[in-house]
Amino acid sequence: MSSAYANLTRTFTRLSRFGHLSAIAGWDMMTMMPPGGSSARGAALAELSVLRHEILTDKAVAQWLDQAANETLNDVERANLREMRRAYDQAALLPAALVEEKSLVGARCEHAWRQQRPANDWQGFAANLKEVVKLSRAEAELRAQANGCSRYDALLDLYEPGMTAAKLDSTFGELKQWLPSLLARIVEKQSRQPVAVPVGPFAVESQQLLGNALMKLLNFDFNAGRLDVSAHPFCGGVPEDVRITTRYNANEFISAMMGVIHETGHACYEQNLPKQWAGQPVALARSTAIHESQSLFFEKQLGRSTEFLSLLLPQVKTLMGDRPELEEANFIALNQRVKPGLIRVDADEVSYPAHIILRYEIERALIESEIEVDDIPTLWQEKMQALLGLDTTGNYRDGCMQDIHWTDGSFGYFPTYTLGAMYAAQLFNSVKKALPQVHSDIREGNLQPIFDWLQQNIWQHGSRFTTRQLIENATGEDLNPRFFRQHLENRYL
Amino acid sequence: MSSAYANLTRTFTRLSRFGHLSAIAGWDMMTMMPPGGSSARGAALAELSVLRHEILTDKAVAQWLDQAANETLNDVERANLREMRRAYDQAALLPAALVEEKSLVGARCEHAWRQQRPANDWQGFAANLKEVVKLSRAEAELRAQANGCSRYDALLDLYEPGMTAAKLDSTFGELKQWLPSLLARIVEKQSRQPVAVPVGPFAVESQQLLGNALMKLLNFDFNAGRLDVSAHPFCGGVPEDVRITTRYNANEFISAMMGVIHETGHACYEQNLPKQWAGQPVALARSTAIHESQSLFFEKQLGRSTEFLSLLLPQVKTLMGDRPELEEANFIALNQRVKPGLIRVDADEVSYPAHIILRYEIERALIESEIEVDDIPTLWQEKMQALLGLDTTGNYRDGCMQDIHWTDGSFGYFPTYTLGAMYAAQLFNSVKKALPQVHSDIREGNLQPIFDWLQQNIWQHGSRFTTRQLIENATGEDLNPRFFRQHLENRYL
Ligand SMILES: [Zn+2]
Ligand SMILES: [Zn+2]
Repeated sequence: MSSAYANLTRTFTRLSRFGHLSAIAGWDMMTMMPPGGSSARGAALAELSVLRHEILTDKAVAQWLDQAANETLNDVERANLREMRRAYDQAALLPAALVEEKSLVGARCEHAWRQQRPANDWQGFAANLKEVVKLSRAEAELRAQANGCSRYDALLDLYEPGMTAAKLDSTFGELKQWLPSLLARIVEKQSRQPVAVPVGPFAVESQQLLGNALMKLLNFDFNAGRLDVSAHPFCGGVPEDVRITTRYNANEFISAMMGVIHETGHACYEQNLPKQWAGQPVALARSTAIHESQSLFFEKQLGRSTEFLSLLLPQVKTLMGDRPELEEANFIALNQRVKPGLIRVDADEVSYPAHIILRYEIERALIESEIEVDDIPTLWQEKMQALLGLDTTGNYRDGCMQDIHWTDGSFGYFPTYTLGAMYAAQLFNSVKKALPQVHSDIREGNLQPIFDWLQQNIWQHGSRFTTRQLIENATGEDLNPRFFRQHLENRYL
Repeated sequence: MSSAYANLTRTFTRLSRFGHLSAIAGWDMMTMMPPGGSSARGAALAELSVLRHEILTDKAVAQWLDQAANETLNDVERANLREMRRAYDQAALLPAALVEEKSLVGARCEHAWRQQRPANDWQGFAANLKEVVKLSRAEAELRAQANGCSRYDALLDLYEPGMTAAKLDSTFGELKQWLPSLLARIVEKQSRQPVAVPVGPFAVESQQLLGNALMKLLNFDFNAGRLDVSAHPFCGGVPEDVRITTRYNANEFISAMMGVIHETGHACYEQNLPKQWAGQPVALARSTAIHESQSLFFEKQLGRSTEFLSLLLPQVKTLMGDRPELEEANFIALNQRVKPGLIRVDADEVSYPAHIILRYEIERALIESEIEVDDIPTLWQEKMQALLGLDTTGNYRDGCMQDIHWTDGSFGYFPTYTLGAMYAAQLFNSVKKALPQVHSDIREGNLQPIFDWLQQNIWQHGSRFTTRQLIENATGEDLNPRFFRQHLENRYL
């Protein structure tokens, strides 16, 4: 008779294979599928999703989980069992009816939002969002009861296991102390250094060549992945075949270039997850926040550094055509420009946390029933004014209606962007200590020591450790926003 | 309580959704996937294939099939039930161990063949092929016992339900009477009309534009499908999202052009299958032979006709550059050139049936244990000499090792190519009767009446009728090779 643990690994291998098909069909939907395929694809993916839920929440799985806890397991197996338990609990906890209703209501809200946002129709959107919030609160309540925590903590835990609102309040609270004044000082400083913007058109073919060259430089394994185009850039596929995307704008090439660096960070994490445990939960990426720390390590710590931009410049000039705006100092200034604006996805790394803190405070209060949907616009205006000094009165489109995340009830996701940025800064600080030559290495294109360090400290571990253990092992301490502050001050002051 | 028939439709809808994911992941594997993704993809697809087999051969399905036979059903439902029964019987009949062994042995033989063919290594290939034949005979024996027919008939039935070796012997026997002499006459005639071959390079971008223009002309619905590149052209995907492929050769554009027309014929059949029964077996294409009749209708009856080639020529000149070889008479002669050769896939429509008859006679005798694998080379040489006057002694690579079909045991498939060609000629004959203006219509690009006729007579029926009923309804009689002969004589003499 095989052990309960062996039965579990077989079940999770099977789930992983079905997850593979779901990931590839999902990637295809975003990159290749003609519009007419949409409804059949939706039905096929939903059918597979129901099946995966059934397999995962089967009674036998619950029994095996209990039995396996008493079996002799090594460290990795025990970590795998912990992640299996987590996956089972998360899935088994919600009644099927709630899952289905949330999925329907979320899809309806998102679909309508695609029209309502350009129409600035807050009233129409609010009506749908109230339904989403109602169901998300119900979900959070069930999860909170099971976990013995607050509602919002229960949702946070889906994206960053172990993270709590208390810890966020303290971390983000510290950021709020120094971020607005730091931002003001940087903006003031940069106002004395005007930047010239290169004028297009920039051929899409050249931008593609630049993207591919960057991916190669960043050690992306083209034998196990590819780059395509989609409306919203993402990193998908499976560790054996990672699919990243970007979008091209003929008038401006820097967004696509930085987008490719960002997604390549996600991709290299996926491509270097532990192959010896492939198919098991312990082989998966640690969390949404750690995933984002890798993309932001690549994009912000590495990609926007003076040394990396200098390294890149000759290739940029060759592909985009030499011109005065690509003179080195100007090219670096272009990529390090700080300019508070209304839109999160366009934000520089200094003002980005303000966008996140604002959303975190609103969504936490919303889930905890401290505020209602109707309170959002006023809160948004107040917080934008306080954090970034911008007026958004009446501009819902570029205000509280700008993001897709709330439309399908992904509450708890936003904080991972800034957690990722802080982890990235903390990790790069440790890289600098481990590799004293790192700045000249980057300038010379010798990036392998950095990849080796990430492989050693992050990638190879998958989900073996908790985030806190992983970060402590890698950097000697738990999350500490000091490194992020130092990074911003060093780069921008 | 829902009826047994309703339970069956739900089960087959579910199977169809999983089939959708399998089709898209399979297409991706051939067109997009980097090599490193291969083994994970193989495992994922195999897992889904096991699941589909389990769902289809569940005991409940057998019970519902029996019960539904006594329920009140309309004509379409009864046809659907017939196709469900067929799918169930085909799947349930084979022991899982045989299916698995055949799949393993076939994969091994095919894999080795990719090296053995270029090395002309008949001995190495024969050793593997013997294993494949052994298992195919075992499969055929089980199917024959269940169907009460001969072994080879049981395999034929997988690709063209209702077709028998007796009927093939009679039909192909008739072809053998007149084909060699007709071929000789045509070759002799064409030897007096030398053809000038256009010299490349032809930009792949121009060939792509030509392919897309052709697909548009042929009513391919780009809202429900796309054209990509693969090593071996195919038509895949699902009726809601049909994926066709081609391959480009910079030195020669006619193969890709005709390949696109061929696959578009397959695609238009798929895109126009009955949507009101989508997800049910009755909504699927009738058979492999009928599918090929649609691609050959497009490629041979329509695409290589003088009228269609004239219609096409201005666009070809624009995209490929005007040159003497694209003078109208030469362009038509190029596309209607008849030249017996060793390779089936390169064969013109006059010598193609010889390649098929040869393979049919050998594979039938092989499955019926009248010959053994070691007898194949000699038989191949004799039949190539008799049918096409070509010597293949010692040339296994371009002889009996040229096709992939036998490597994984797809015995019974080859005849559908020539059945398809004959059905296509018979259908076009009926089109000419129904649309007396059809030749001038084609020359003027007015193809809609032809598509309407195919829609009315073939596409909309899916698998509602048997092949024989379908062809009799469309043309007034069962398969009759006379129309194929008339077509060849009209075009080439
Ligand atoms: Zn990211
Ligand atoms: Zn075909």
